[in-house]
Amino acid sequence: MYGLIGKMKTAAGERDRVIALLLDGTAAMPGCLSYVVATDPADPDAIWITEAWESAELHRASLALPAVQATIAQARPMITGFGERFETAPVGGHGLVTG
Amino acid sequence: MYGLIGKMKTAAGERDRVIALLLDGTAAMPGCLSYVVATDPADPDAIWITEAWESAELHRASLALPAVQATIAQARPMITGFGERFETAPVGGHGLVTG
Repeated sequence: MYGLIGKMKTAAGERDRVIALLLDGTAAMPGCLSYVVATDPADPDAIWITEAWESAELHRASLALPAVQATIAQARPMITGFGERFETAPVGGHGLVTG
Repeated sequence: MYGLIGKMKTAAGERDRVIALLLDGTAAMPGCLSYVVATDPADPDAIWITEAWESAELHRASLALPAVQATIAQARPMITGFGERFETAPVGGHGLVTG
């Protein structure tokens, strides 16, 4: 499995619009086992995204999906940068769900 | 919702034993919506744990569960420390599963 933990920074006041786009545009991604979007209690302009995928290839392929491309295009003007980013290799647990 | 992203460091060679304990001891935790255990491609002695809970209270309560207490007792001698730790507030996504 392939995992990503990352922090996205948004323009002031735009966090919740970006979150809505993320939740909407990432609903059905082949090979995605977990995709959790969270706010950061310590930073009103930050979004944490934690992901688990069947493989790095399926994660990479997801970036070309029309729905994901549309999300990226809509969200990009509101994204000001990225914070921490960690690649992981999930091995198990609760909440890894196919489809 | 309440979320945690954290890195645990283990003694050399003990990572996979700690992972087995974590996966075994955290199978049924009330209020746990996601609990994903991952290795770190950049560090053979690190474990990433990403969690989502219905509330901070249920997360706190889980630490008193007999199975979790047993896991902590067994794993503690192999844990050498902790790395990054971020509290989050999950708002949605894929893989948030009750029970």
